[in-house]
Amino acid sequence: MRADAQRNYERILAVAIDTVARDGAEVSLEAIARQAGVGSATLHRHFASRAALLHAVFHDRVAALSAQAVALAAEPDAAAALVTWLRALGAYASSTRGMPVSMLPSAQDNSCHAMLTQAGGTLLGRAQAAGGVRPEVAIQDLLALVTAISLAGERTPKPGSDTDRLLMLALDGIRR
Amino acid sequence: MRADAQRNYERILAVAIDTVARDGAEVSLEAIARQAGVGSATLHRHFASRAALLHAVFHDRVAALSAQAVALAAEPDAAAALVTWLRALGAYASSTRGMPVSMLPSAQDNSCHAMLTQAGGTLLGRAQAAGGVRPEVAIQDLLALVTAISLAGERTPKPGSDTDRLLMLALDGIRR
Repeated sequence: MRADAQRNYERILAVAIDTVARDGAEVSLEAIARQAGVGSATLHRHFASRAALLHAVFHDRVAALSAQAVALAAEPDAAAALVTWLRALGAYASSTRGMPVSMLPSAQDNSCHAMLTQAGGTLLGRAQAAGGVRPEVAIQDLLALVTAISLAGERTPKPGSDTDRLLMLALDGIRR
Repeated sequence: MRADAQRNYERILAVAIDTVARDGAEVSLEAIARQAGVGSATLHRHFASRAALLHAVFHDRVAALSAQAVALAAEPDAAAALVTWLRALGAYASSTRGMPVSMLPSAQDNSCHAMLTQAGGTLLGRAQAAGGVRPEVAIQDLLALVTAISLAGERTPKPGSDTDRLLMLALDGIRR
């Protein structure tokens, strides 16, 4: 990337990070371009879609969650390691506007979803191999649960407050 | 209600049922008033808020779910009866646009939420008394799970398809 293109990219991304944190995933791309002092065409050259922009906004944190999964794969209790990671993901998703939407598999550019599927899939496979988690549980289902709970949290008066409790309930089940 | 007011009420409600099924909870109230051939003031006289209108739209079905809960309370396996009811609620919510939103406790007029809390709370209390469900599980949490899963289903390509599987996973937990 040329120096001026790189500067535009970074300026757009910085504005996007602030704006998404305030307005969520439905943020106006035109408003971001305007505030970054570039035209819509420039924004679209760097970010082909809303999903691509959201992916960039969340990329560093999703990469950190992937790294955390690698570290947790060394823990002796494989099922507990999986639960720890899912709770960390839930805590981030429910405290970060726009993040749950970009975890949906239906996101056009679903790189966030792909990275998280990869990271969580390793932990789940390990927990299943160790016999701690039922074999029919799929990582897509676990991510869907975290996404659903975080997404609903965005619509409640105190987002985040109940997310961890609901996630723990879903992972433990209701039976005595 | 006078006969003409009653006719207006019924016309508005009939239009609202069709429009919410097509457009979901974010439906335009003005469009409903226009299509029903009444002014906005008339609509607001009958339905003081969007939530009140949604409540009316879903009322018959929520009443049917309440009646189903009463019938299920006679089943010998109290935990199974609770699960049957939650799955029936999930099937309805995930196949009915706008319904998950009106199940949120944050809905201004949360009559749907209140009716479902009452109906499900009876089944949960019975299941807990019989020792089948952990005592710390609250009906608000179970409704929040069903709502979250249904709400996320509205944003996936094939809404409804995965809802029941995710709900069963959440009720059973992941442990072997």
